[in-house]
Amino acid sequence: MSTSRLEAFSDGVMAVAITLLVLNIDLPTLVKGQSLASGLAHQWPAYAAYVVSFLTIGIIWINHHVMIGRLREADRTILFLNLLLLMSIAVLPFATKLMAAYLRHSSGQHLAAAIYSGSFLIMGLLFAALNAHILLAKHSKLRQELPLERRRLILVRSVAGVIPYAIATALAAVSPYATIAICAALGVFYAFPISSGGADAI
Amino acid sequence: MSTSRLEAFSDGVMAVAITLLVLNIDLPTLVKGQSLASGLAHQWPAYAAYVVSFLTIGIIWINHHVMIGRLREADRTILFLNLLLLMSIAVLPFATKLMAAYLRHSSGQHLAAAIYSGSFLIMGLLFAALNAHILLAKHSKLRQELPLERRRLILVRSVAGVIPYAIATALAAVSPYATIAICAALGVFYAFPISSGGADAI
Amino acid sequence: MSTSRLEAFSDGVMAVAITLLVLNIDLPTLVKGQSLASGLAHQWPAYAAYVVSFLTIGIIWINHHVMIGRLREADRTILFLNLLLLMSIAVLPFATKLMAAYLRHSSGQHLAAAIYSGSFLIMGLLFAALNAHILLAKHSKLRQELPLERRRLILVRSVAGVIPYAIATALAAVSPYATIAICAALGVFYAFPISSGGADAI
Amino acid sequence: MSTSRLEAFSDGVMAVAITLLVLNIDLPTLVKGQSLASGLAHQWPAYAAYVVSFLTIGIIWINHHVMIGRLREADRTILFLNLLLLMSIAVLPFATKLMAAYLRHSSGQHLAAAIYSGSFLIMGLLFAALNAHILLAKHSKLRQELPLERRRLILVRSVAGVIPYAIATALAAVSPYATIAICAALGVFYAFPISSGGADAI
Repeated sequence: MSTSRLEAFSDGVMAVAITLLVLNIDLPTLVKGQSLASGLAHQWPAYAAYVVSFLTIGIIWINHHVMIGRLREADRTILFLNLLLLMSIAVLPFATKLMAAYLRHSSGQHLAAAIYSGSFLIMGLLFAALNAHILLAKHSKLRQELPLERRRLILVRSVAGVIPYAIATALAAVSPYATIAICAALGVFYAFPISSGGADAI
Repeated sequence: MSTSRLEAFSDGVMAVAITLLVLNIDLPTLVKGQSLASGLAHQWPAYAAYVVSFLTIGIIWINHHVMIGRLREADRTILFLNLLLLMSIAVLPFATKLMAAYLRHSSGQHLAAAIYSGSFLIMGLLFAALNAHILLAKHSKLRQELPLERRRLILVRSVAGVIPYAIATALAAVSPYATIAICAALGVFYAFPISSGGADAI
Repeated sequence: MSTSRLEAFSDGVMAVAITLLVLNIDLPTLVKGQSLASGLAHQWPAYAAYVVSFLTIGIIWINHHVMIGRLREADRTILFLNLLLLMSIAVLPFATKLMAAYLRHSSGQHLAAAIYSGSFLIMGLLFAALNAHILLAKHSKLRQELPLERRRLILVRSVAGVIPYAIATALAAVSPYATIAICAALGVFYAFPISSGGADAI
Repeated sequence: MSTSRLEAFSDGVMAVAITLLVLNIDLPTLVKGQSLASGLAHQWPAYAAYVVSFLTIGIIWINHHVMIGRLREADRTILFLNLLLLMSIAVLPFATKLMAAYLRHSSGQHLAAAIYSGSFLIMGLLFAALNAHILLAKHSKLRQELPLERRRLILVRSVAGVIPYAIATALAAVSPYATIAICAALGVFYAFPISSGGADAI
């Protein structure tokens, strides 16, 4: 299968997933005498989770194209791994909603943060697995040959980019605020143009 | 009509349908004293139905491209059958929601499972009908001529791929768990790269 | 602006609108002792409205491509009329939901049916207006010159295709069932491959 | 990265966002004895906010293509600014829902109108920032060189187009109806083909 179809479908899923995130931001339910300003301010976790998820899907979209751009054609393993990767992205609106709803609940906040950050972790791992399959395939499907050293570097970055998400997920047991702060920092860091060296990382 | 437009629109509908599935996964409503972990675990049918539907739409997307890729141009019958096929895909978020909500209800579980699996069955039948029209048309619209034997083989596979869904639908009268287990096994089997021989089947 | 961008965006909006229709089909709320089968059967207006709207958007998508396919490039008037046309399509999930909810309510059924059918009417009128602008422009933007007679025929069909929707809308005052039956018949008639002569009509 | 991928993803996000707006229009909840006509008429703010947001996203889509059409290739800063621009567009369904819900609430109407119009303002500012980066980059990435004068004119228009939204946002403190009226007038003015000179402005 040509990679242009693969990109078009993947673009579609990512564009829908990133835009569906907004459905998680509900109108605030005001208690008697509460102002709209206070009601809106009170649901800041929904905005924080929205921005972090939006940036993270945006980054994965950019890196997805860099990755697929190296491919000449897609085989079934690539289609399969890509489908799993898309599933991990398509599920983010749920993880985001969960994070937003439970960030301040003393009982569920640790689990919600672990699921939120863990979703990014799984997404990153699937991305690295797909990258590994593409770069290390016995019969290269690369559009342009890359020296082994360069391929290894790309892969190492792919895996290294996942580590902070593993740390963020582990930290959920201690502080869900630390978890979302790390995810936010990663979103800004990877998306921010200065850090273009890290672009391949996630 | 050129097939590229047909593919673009079909890709769009499938990308939206596959991504909308996540809206079926609600936050759990916790009863007093229930932990979030228990609440999330309790709604496992929603996750199971999600994964099975996601994989199945993913497979139909892959096979749709193989099928349309053989076409030189689309006539009105193809547009019409394709529209019906897209309708059977677009309706899956509803069937998935129904399955997830009723899998453990003693009264509605059989019907919900039959509708769920039956939706895949109808999708498979429409896919086979479209394939039959494309492969057996009097005035071939194939991009590349295929020997009759090969065309028959593709068609037989198309129809054969539907049989397990018919069995799964029939089994809903006995056990809805068997139904969803068969659908899950089919999703994994067809999507898994090893079974590339069966790729054309659904 | 090139017409390929115009088509891509229009395709996107139509693909999303046609797929969002499924969100209008809710799980039935069962009253005590009611079976799921009865609950599902009871909400047949939701399925009827779904199928009619799905087919109608599908037809407008087909005809949209025929129309835009004649264009060499798009000017601002075309962009503007196309945007209004897309709005009339994007609003159909609401009209469909309204129709489904009120078809059996003695008090609101006439208005709901008039709005439902009226939405198709407006969509058809905007389609005809866009067609008129494209076909009768002083400085032709057609990819391929068409004799005046042929252009007139296309336009007459465009306008004629709207008449049944006007009748269906007027009939809403008498019987909302007649309204939806006419819309359904038109959906099947225009979509069905035999009637390819009428394809340009709506 | 090639600009065609950037356009495809941006088109996808904008097409989904513009179509999701319809989900904000709920069926009216009728109080006892209220007719459907009265219930529908009562929620006119939802329709007004819908139309204004739809036109505004439509305009930004048109101008986005004019802007990206000038680009030869995208660098990371462009990807980053474009991602922020898409976020400001993807968030509009929420701002629209807020506006529609609070336009007639004496307590929240000012804030809701300020957020609504402020969202357009931020979108316009991000658009101008992206335009500035594209037009004033040290190493031009323009497909076709433009004289400095022409580039300045485009930029001035980009910034000038934002001013009315700033005024509309400020006026929210006085009258939310004035705010939405200005946004509506801008939507019609910029979308309307006659005012093609102003097309670049927003």
